[in-house]
Amino acid sequence: MTAPSGFRAAGVAAGIKANGNKDMALLLSDVPATVAGVFTTNKVKAAPVRVSMNAVKSGVARAIIANSGNANACTGAVGLVHAKAMAAAVARRIGCKAENVLVCSTGRIGVTMPLVKVEVGIKRLLGMLQPRGGHAVAEAIMTSDTFPKEVAVAIRHAGRTIHVAGVAKGAGMIQPKMATMLSFLTTDAAIPRAALQKALRTAADQSFNRISVDGDMSTNDTVILLANGVAGPVPLGKFQEALNFVSLELAKMIVRDGEGVTKFVTINVQGAANDRDAEIAGRAVANSVLVKTSWCGGDPNWGRIMDALGYSRAHVVEEKVDIAYDGVVAVRGGMPTKIPLAKLKPIVAKTDFTVDIQLHLGTGRCTLYTCDLTEKYVELNKGE
Amino acid sequence: MTAPSGFRAAGVAAGIKANGNKDMALLLSDVPATVAGVFTTNKVKAAPVRVSMNAVKSGVARAIIANSGNANACTGAVGLVHAKAMAAAVARRIGCKAENVLVCSTGRIGVTMPLVKVEVGIKRLLGMLQPRGGHAVAEAIMTSDTFPKEVAVAIRHAGRTIHVAGVAKGAGMIQPKMATMLSFLTTDAAIPRAALQKALRTAADQSFNRISVDGDMSTNDTVILLANGVAGPVPLGKFQEALNFVSLELAKMIVRDGEGVTKFVTINVQGAANDRDAEIAGRAVANSVLVKTSWCGGDPNWGRIMDALGYSRAHVVEEKVDIAYDGVVAVRGGMPTKIPLAKLKPIVAKTDFTVDIQLHLGTGRCTLYTCDLTEKYVELNKGE
Repeated sequence: MTAPSGFRAAGVAAGIKANGNKDMALLLSDVPATVAGVFTTNKVKAAPVRVSMNAVKSGVARAIIANSGNANACTGAVGLVHAKAMAAAVARRIGCKAENVLVCSTGRIGVTMPLVKVEVGIKRLLGMLQPRGGHAVAEAIMTSDTFPKEVAVAIRHAGRTIHVAGVAKGAGMIQPKMATMLSFLTTDAAIPRAALQKALRTAADQSFNRISVDGDMSTNDTVILLANGVAGPVPLGKFQEALNFVSLELAKMIVRDGEGVTKFVTINVQGAANDRDAEIAGRAVANSVLVKTSWCGGDPNWGRIMDALGYSRAHVVEEKVDIAYDGVVAVRGGMPTKIPLAKLKPIVAKTDFTVDIQLHLGTGRCTLYTCDLTEKYVELNKGE
Repeated sequence: MTAPSGFRAAGVAAGIKANGNKDMALLLSDVPATVAGVFTTNKVKAAPVRVSMNAVKSGVARAIIANSGNANACTGAVGLVHAKAMAAAVARRIGCKAENVLVCSTGRIGVTMPLVKVEVGIKRLLGMLQPRGGHAVAEAIMTSDTFPKEVAVAIRHAGRTIHVAGVAKGAGMIQPKMATMLSFLTTDAAIPRAALQKALRTAADQSFNRISVDGDMSTNDTVILLANGVAGPVPLGKFQEALNFVSLELAKMIVRDGEGVTKFVTINVQGAANDRDAEIAGRAVANSVLVKTSWCGGDPNWGRIMDALGYSRAHVVEEKVDIAYDGVVAVRGGMPTKIPLAKLKPIVAKTDFTVDIQLHLGTGRCTLYTCDLTEKYVELNKGE
């Protein structure tokens, strides 16, 4: 995420996580950057989300201060004071208004932030900022993630090189709706504020808003995009394409690194009455506990997919449904084809496959990225 | 379910299940019985559900023929022919119209019914009918259930004894909506048809429609109530009370015997804007994969409950929410109380506990019965 010019970053272990891993990150734009953000639509919003939503309204940002190991959610008025204190501590030292600093937290809900540790961490981060510090940020925002998630692309335009980059973290409580888990995107392109917000919304809607690990939408989901303009302007179409790519790659990484995940499954719903219906039908399949466990065992159990389509609120006519695994049609007109189970099993046994669902009712379509549900997921989430 | 007078029943192993367990059941009313039914609202409906819905419309029934091991769902026109053939085979031999025989199937979706085995099974069942055959029916409808589910109560009225009884089966793909998994209820009370249907709907709405094991609504959910009138009339209030009791006990048994279940959890939502909102909020909690796995590990992770309430479509104000475990208040006004985790853990470690959620927004309320999500559930469902 520090591939674009004019950004510096750092990550440290400030002692918020008991295991001693990195747990605080700071991203700084050398010049004031235009900022866009999309946030969780959960009615229970963490304090840092409220602070960052407010910061996005100011339109300009200098920095993002983030921590893992504590979500600062369900922490009431005290939590809000703490989140504002984090922004203020950074703002004071870099010389900007507190409202130009975004705050992001992820971790356990309902625990008071250890503010003394956090303030010591901020001081250390400020002394460590580097033009290549993006990797440390990707590491410092990890919770149950098993690998850091980073993507960067370069666009050539009018003899100049413009970058779009980002980091993200998963890996549980993942079903973003109009938002996602933490992701920080950067660009050195110069993009006007309204266009930037629109571009981010578009990118999020085809990436972070199209994934589900466990169907649980978090209280802390946040995607922030900073554009510092250092590399000059770029045609919006080109920028959108790059932003879409970076967002989608990061979103897919979140699914691949979902807790206990062994399969990455792309669900293509087509022929729905409308796009909204396609999404509703797809989400019912992606979030069905029975569908997900059957994938875990490599079982091409399309009956469970039919069942989930049937109880979704989408318009579905049993006799019209076709279902294919990697293009091999298992169900036509709501009934099994002659394709033997032995031909479907090797597909679902793979770590990566596609389920195509054709409803034959209209032109609505939606692609979702999801995963299986494994014993490991339960094991990871059943204790503290 | 044969406690009421005038009913006979039997169960046999007809070879539909590969493991040789009982897989066919027949219930016969000696005289034509008034019939009521509630069925799955899944748009993908199994053939036997369609046949039975039609039979309920006739208002009178003599028999229920049921099988486990094959759901006869997603089997198209052939499946419908098979379901009708099952009704006709029974009707012919007991001397009634085919439309007075209900058909119920449960098991794998998308597999053609082995009709020859089924017809042999029907002949054998007819030769085995007994006034105490209810237990064999409870056994024969089991799929992944670990114990047969039966309840019977007696009502004294005007010197007469009237019975209400029933059987049910679970244990996966359980989140009935306006219907449930298979349950057959019987009574020797004389109840007019319209009153019977209303009584069944009322009973189902406070029992089968208030449970969730995995959030997946089946294609085959069916509850049937036969009233043969042999024991004469009974005041409706008394009858409703008995029917509610029998239904709720059976529904709770389904949750307790849910696949891989180790905890039975009662969720009481109170103070919602209205009853519908209370149900929506409660279902979000009951079906949250993260909430269910935390229970599995005995973790009083109320943060995940707050999260689920927040993303439910119910009206929820974070600052007003109270959450208690067996009466011990863990959250007040959306924030943790001073109760230490050490006091909550022993409650969630129990096999049976209650979560009270008070939204402080109105008078809406709903009670739901649910369970944890365990590694065992995944193991049971990941293969065939």
